[in-house]
Formats: sequence, structure tokens, C-alpha cells
Amino acid sequence: MIKKILIANRGEIAVRIVRACSEMGIKSVAIYTDADRHALHVKKADESYNIGSDPVIGYLNAHNIVNLAVAAGCDALHPGYGFLSENPVLAEICAKRGIKFIGPSPKVIHRMGDKIQARQAMIDAGVPVIPGSEGNLANVKQAIELATGIGYPVMLKATNGGGGRGIRRCNSEEELVKNYDRVVSEATKAFGKPELFMEKCVVNPRHIEVQVIGDSFGSVIHLFERDCSIQRRNQKLIEIAPSPQLTRAQRDYIGKIAVQAARTVGYENAGTVEFLLDQDNQFYFMEMNTRLQVEHTVTETITGIDIVQEQIRIASGLPLQYKQEDVNYRGFAMEFRINAEDPKNDFLPSFGRITRYYAPGGPGVRTDAAMYTGYVIPPYYDSMCAKLTVWALTWEGVVERGKRALNDMVVYGVKTTIPYYQQILQHPDFRSGKFDTSFVEAHPELTNYTVRLPKEQLAAAISAAIAAHVGL
Amino acid sequence: MIKKILIANRGEIAVRIVRACSEMGIKSVAIYTDADRHALHVKKADESYNIGSDPVIGYLNAHNIVNLAVAAGCDALHPGYGFLSENPVLAEICAKRGIKFIGPSPKVIHRMGDKIQARQAMIDAGVPVIPGSEGNLANVKQAIELATGIGYPVMLKATNGGGGRGIRRCNSEEELVKNYDRVVSEATKAFGKPELFMEKCVVNPRHIEVQVIGDSFGSVIHLFERDCSIQRRNQKLIEIAPSPQLTRAQRDYIGKIAVQAARTVGYENAGTVEFLLDQDNQFYFMEMNTRLQVEHTVTETITGIDIVQEQIRIASGLPLQYKQEDVNYRGFAMEFRINAEDPKNDFLPSFGRITRYYAPGGPGVRTDAAMYTGYVIPPYYDSMCAKLTVWALTWEGVVERGKRALNDMVVYGVKTTIPYYQQILQHPDFRSGKFDTSFVEAHPELTNYTVRLPKEQLAAAISAAIAAHVGL
Repeated sequence: MIKKILIANRGEIAVRIVRACSEMGIKSVAIYTDADRHALHVKKADESYNIGSDPVIGYLNAHNIVNLAVAAGCDALHPGYGFLSENPVLAEICAKRGIKFIGPSPKVIHRMGDKIQARQAMIDAGVPVIPGSEGNLANVKQAIELATGIGYPVMLKATNGGGGRGIRRCNSEEELVKNYDRVVSEATKAFGKPELFMEKCVVNPRHIEVQVIGDSFGSVIHLFERDCSIQRRNQKLIEIAPSPQLTRAQRDYIGKIAVQAARTVGYENAGTVEFLLDQDNQFYFMEMNTRLQVEHTVTETITGIDIVQEQIRIASGLPLQYKQEDVNYRGFAMEFRINAEDPKNDFLPSFGRITRYYAPGGPGVRTDAAMYTGYVIPPYYDSMCAKLTVWALTWEGVVERGKRALNDMVVYGVKTTIPYYQQILQHPDFRSGKFDTSFVEAHPELTNYTVRLPKEQLAAAISAAIAAHVGL
Repeated sequence: MIKKILIANRGEIAVRIVRACSEMGIKSVAIYTDADRHALHVKKADESYNIGSDPVIGYLNAHNIVNLAVAAGCDALHPGYGFLSENPVLAEICAKRGIKFIGPSPKVIHRMGDKIQARQAMIDAGVPVIPGSEGNLANVKQAIELATGIGYPVMLKATNGGGGRGIRRCNSEEELVKNYDRVVSEATKAFGKPELFMEKCVVNPRHIEVQVIGDSFGSVIHLFERDCSIQRRNQKLIEIAPSPQLTRAQRDYIGKIAVQAARTVGYENAGTVEFLLDQDNQFYFMEMNTRLQVEHTVTETITGIDIVQEQIRIASGLPLQYKQEDVNYRGFAMEFRINAEDPKNDFLPSFGRITRYYAPGGPGVRTDAAMYTGYVIPPYYDSMCAKLTVWALTWEGVVERGKRALNDMVVYGVKTTIPYYQQILQHPDFRSGKFDTSFVEAHPELTNYTVRLPKEQLAAAISAAIAAHVGL
């Protein structure tokens, strides 16, 4: 069994992993750059090490991190999400240095990270894929020919992309020509490789993804699906499990397909197979994420299975604790990504000092936060500073619980997405469980809310006004 | 449906009820005395009213509270637990003033509050009761005769008592004589009535209680049991659902018995039937609590049913949403009563300012707190300032999660029971799921822990020491 884990990440996911370690009697080691000196993961871990003055570079230096893991006496490394989590080089270095990488093999990471190879693997596995180019596009001329055959709109995607970047929709030949060079340039900048490919654009799909876990003995099971259709510019905002939009038959079907996909590529550890579900209820494979997802909490909540603990068990060489027939789900879970952003100002990041933080409580509420009263959110990282996950036995119940818990959550000092989510929860389309990935874009009016001044701030403002008026 | 509820309580349970109201679209009205001006329930409720300068009296004045409910336009009142919750007079006044009392009828409250009447009702219902006096004791002479027949040890109990007060164990005739007058005096002081009765003392029992809910149409179901054996001087400290000490057959049996008990007395709304389970696995009825219990959270956590919402539905005249066969449980839940007390100093209350409060988070953690950073715990009330409820699929998992979550919970400024619970969670008897109500008394060594100075306080202490040394 693993004894000591270096967590190659920061923020809420690092705290999440510390918690799993603590419950398993495993020592946790945090890393941090100067900007993260006061971050919560540093306070929560058993040990923590400074990895440099640059806010970001330290988290991306695979060699240094693995050296540190060895020096600190760790026998394993958890990559979290983002940063190096889907970089096969980190997994390779770990293997060379005798550190167990908590994730799939470098080969599988590489294969599923390459969109073309991944697509081919899925075709081989009998998983439905979106009609598109066989492999990378050679040039814009070939792209035009292909698009004419597939029919507009089409998508151009960076072969090595991920996280919603390096993707552009083209509604016409004119847009295709314009976007071709843009995607090449974005792909080169963001992922270091210029290759791109084309897919038919599935118009207004639902985003349905299936959590899978596999052990080193070849067993693979799924933990049902998540509905991540509420996104803005390909960034997920609210995630739900199970999807209120699937029948039980669809749920069983897509679960089986995902397991088939994972088995075909010899998948080990936790991963996610992402699908689009079009308006005719046809599923298409989109991509496989070879890491823990931000939104794993909703799956944990409905199944009761601790996915991070399972990851650690699997990496320790233990077999899966569950058979597919042992896994069940109860009720509905909904996760809100609490981002330090101003929805009223085009979701501009809103960093700075948290003057007051109070976590929501009561029944059916889980908080995964990376902040506390007095914490200063640094401007160098992703703007997500907490995740709020709510649960209830029914869909109506989870929507109401979400409203209540968002209202219960106090974050003063920075702007957040909390009031925006309150608007989404009141929209009839959302409440009826019928929405797709166009929801956010289709409802720009949802940012037209008035922020209620909290009672205590209101009282202070009134006092100040009175004092000014009477010349105090 | 009820539209607006006055919450005749304070602290965490008032906050809990506000949350249920919020999720049901019901307006909540809080009450507070001067000492509670900054209490969390006042901040969370939709409206709040000051009920006087004395810290306690306002919460006990049934007439004033119901007048306020009427004046504020409420159509219902929730009594919480403690204070007037089991006082039939409050329920009666509500009925007279057209305010729905969220609880059973005054008649049932009165009947179950009278230990002699309750015992007789249980005998009629075929529920096993502890051998003891038939009705109140006439005098000490009769008590001695009875005890000789039953066999020592015996218990003397105030007929109108509750909450673990007005109870004394007598191991011999000598102790019986001595305690008789004491209980009469305690009963008169605490409950206004001197009557007392006698029961055989069940030595080192387990405390097993069953949650029941009944509607106004005569349907009654149970939501399984709670194990509250970890108590100190009859005050519960840790509560668990389901009990790790029962077989499925025992669980089904005691559930049925509890439903039978509730049906016999025409029970409506949520209530708890408390049993002792002796070392020969015989159950004995102890008492019925005609209100929401502190530890209802563990039942909510394993069943997924929101008991406070059910209470409100029932009081609104709606039928139960669930049939017995629809109710199931998953995993284990454990609640820790976080008391502002110093376990190392005979659990002396430790009131004052919370200099830092940080709620635990992550998977399987629920917090019901009545505090925040900067809050001053007033000395006038019960010392419980928060409840921490943890859940996991397995018994081993919930014990480890408890340890982790207690460690994760930050309460600086006052002493709490948190480090003491950490000791309990490490004791082999507790971990093996074998313990009875003698556990706390049998292990006084568990208060011999060293409080680890939190990292940040340690750093401050070291800095101060260095500064002093170098003469800064």
C-alpha cells in the first residue's frame, strides 16, 4: 500500500487529495510557489515544500517535482487536474524514478491525449464517433473539400488540445478559411503542436460524460454519467449526476459503451469518457480525460464511492472493491463551480482578499473550497476558488437545495458566479431539466441581476450614510 | 401549504429550520434575546424579532412567542428541541390562536412526557418495558419494598423529567434512601413536579432509538435506528446510524416495535422512541421524545430523507411521501456534538470569542453550526455550538472520515470536545463497533491528550519567543 503521496497540484483539488490521504492513513506532501505560501493546501497537508518564486513554473516542472517526491520519501504522486495531469512525461519520469503515478500509464495518456489516435481507438472499440477527417488535416484545401462532404457547420479542433481550447466552429467555407490559421496558431501556442482535425458540428448537443475506473487486473466499471451541458465558452459551470435528461435505458447503454472504450485502450485508474448527445438522442464520443475531473464530486455524492481513495487503491495495486452490479446511485447531485469572476462584466476574473468566507451547511451540502476569511486569491491561476455540491432525493429537491446553499454561502471581498447561478436555477428550462450546451449563450439576460447587499453590509452602509448626514 | 414559520428556538437548530423553510419557499421568522443579537439564526432567517433583554426567559414565554407569530403573519411555529418543544402548553396556545404547531398534538406530548402514562401506553401496545413501579412512588418505604423485589441496582426517575436530568442510580437500599429525596428535590426544581418512579437498572445497556414519522391520516413509518451509546452523564456525545451493533433482524424488529408504539398513541409528525438494549440483546422501552432530536442528521444522511421538511409537510396536512418499503439506508453516518467545553477540565463550559472558525469540507461531511469567525458564544445556553455529521459506505470508512473531518474543523478561541472525540475514534472498542453507555465513564484516560498547537499558532508562538529573546 502507498505510504506517502506528493500532490503535484494546488487549490481545492490538492486539499481534496490531502483529505483522501488523511482518511487512508497516508502522509501527504504539498508543493507551493511563493504566491501560494498562504494557500489552504499548504496548511492542510502533512508537509509542504516551496518550489520556486515564479507563481506557475514550479507546478509545471515535472523533473523538479519528481525529484522532490523522491527526496521527501514519497512512494507515489497524484497529479490532480490541469497542470501536468495529462502530460505523459510526468507519468514517465515517475515510472523511471520508482514513484507510482496515480493515473493511467504514460502510453494511454499519450494515446487518449492525441485526438486522432483516440478517435481511431474508439472506432476500433465500436464506440460511435462524430463524422470527420480521418486523421490530421493536411491543409485548408483538404479541409474545404471534407467540409463540403460532411456539411456545415463543422468544427476545427487542435489534435493535442483539451479543456475547451483550440476549438472553433465554422458555419461556412468563408469561416473555415478564416479559422483554419487561427486554430493552427492557437494550437501551436497552447499545446506546442500545430496539428488540427475536423468534425461535423453537432448543433446544440448535451454534454454527457461517464466516469470509469479500472484496476491493474483488467476490471473496468462505470459510475454512471454526469451532465455538464451548462457551460460557457466550453468551460463547465454546473455539473449534474445523474443527467435528468437520460432514460434508464440510455444510462445503461452509455455506461456500457464507456466501459467498452476504456477496456479497449487498457485503461487503468479513474478516467472520463465524454460524449455529445444530439437532439435526436444519438451519442457521439468526444474525448477521454485521463485524470480526475473537477466534477467527480457529483459522482461521489450519488454513488457514495470515494473516487480519489479508489485511485490510490488502484495505484497501490489493489483490485477494484466493487463489481458493476454493486454500484448504484441515489437521488441527484449538482456541482457549482464558484469562480472569482464578475458575470456582469463578461466574467472578468475578480481576484483579491476574501474579507469574509462562510461555508454553507445543513443537509445535502458538500463544500470543496480553497479559501478562508483573510485569504488573498492570487491572480495567476484558474479563477475557481470553491466547488459547492448539493444533493437531494429528487430533481426538484436538488434545484431548491442548490438555491438555498448558494444563498447560504458567504464570499465577500471578490465577485463570484454565485448570483449568476441563482438566476440559472430560476430559469424554467433549467428547472424542467431540459437544456443543452447552448443554454448559457442563449440566455445573456441571466447576468441582469441586482446584487442584494448582505444584511450586515447594508447595515454598515446605512450607518455610514446617517453618520455622513448628521455630520458625525 | 404552510407559508411562514416562526422558529421558537435559537442556535444551530434554528438555522437548520431556516434552511428547510428556504428550500420549501417558506418564509422564516427568528426570535432572539439581547444576548443572541449576533447569533447566526438571526442572520439567516428572513425576519427576526427581539423578544427581550433576559437571555433565556424570552425563549420560554409561550404566550409572547405565539402573539409574535400571529403579529408577524405566521401560520405555523416550529419549536426545535429543548426550550418549549415538549411543553404541551405551547402546542395548546398555538391551536387556540390558529397557528399550526409543527409537532404532535398537545395530548400526545402530555401523555408521552408523563413517564408513567407513557409506560402504560407502551405496555398496552405490546412494547417491552423495563420492570418497575406501576405508577408513581408513594414514599421511600414503598420504594424500598419494590426494589427488594426487582433487585438492585434500580433507577429513580422524575416522572416529568427528560434530557437525562432527574435520574439517579441506586446500588443498595442505603443509596435508595439517600437518592429518593434528591430526585424529588431535583424534579421539583427542574420540572415543577415532585413525582418520581422506579425502574430496574439495566446495567451497561446500549442506547438505541428509532426515528418515526406519522401523518394526520394515521400512516406511521420508521426511518431506522440511531445508536447513541456514547454519552457522558446521560448526555449524548456521538450518535450513529444505523447502529453497528444490530443485526438486520434486530433492526427490522425494533423498527416495527417503534411504529407499533407510535401508532398506539396516535402519533403525528416526527418523534423518537428510545430503547435500552441490554447485554442479553433484550430491548426495553425507555421514553418517547415528541420532537425533532439533535441527532436527526444521521438519519437524514443514511436515508436521504429531510426530516424537517417532512415535519412541515405533515403539519401542512399532507400525507407521508414514503411508504415503509420505499425507505432504505446506505452506509453509516456519525454525528459529533461539538461542545464548547474543556474535556480536560471535567467538561467545564468554555465560552467566549471564536477567533477563527473553518468548517470541514470534502466528501461525506455535513456541518450544522451556530458560529462563525468573530462570534462570541454566550454563557447562557447549552454549550453545543456545532454538529459535525460524517458519512461513508462502511463502518471503517466512517470512523476514518470522522477522524479526518474533526482534524479538518478549525475552532480557535474556545476549548471544544474535538480533541476528545479524536481519542474516542482511536479506541479499539469503539473502532470494533462494540460499546455501551458505560464507555465514556470507563475510559477517563481518553481526556489525557496533548492539544497540538495548530501550525499557524505555533508559528506565531515561535516568532513571539524569538522576538522576546532578541529583545525586539
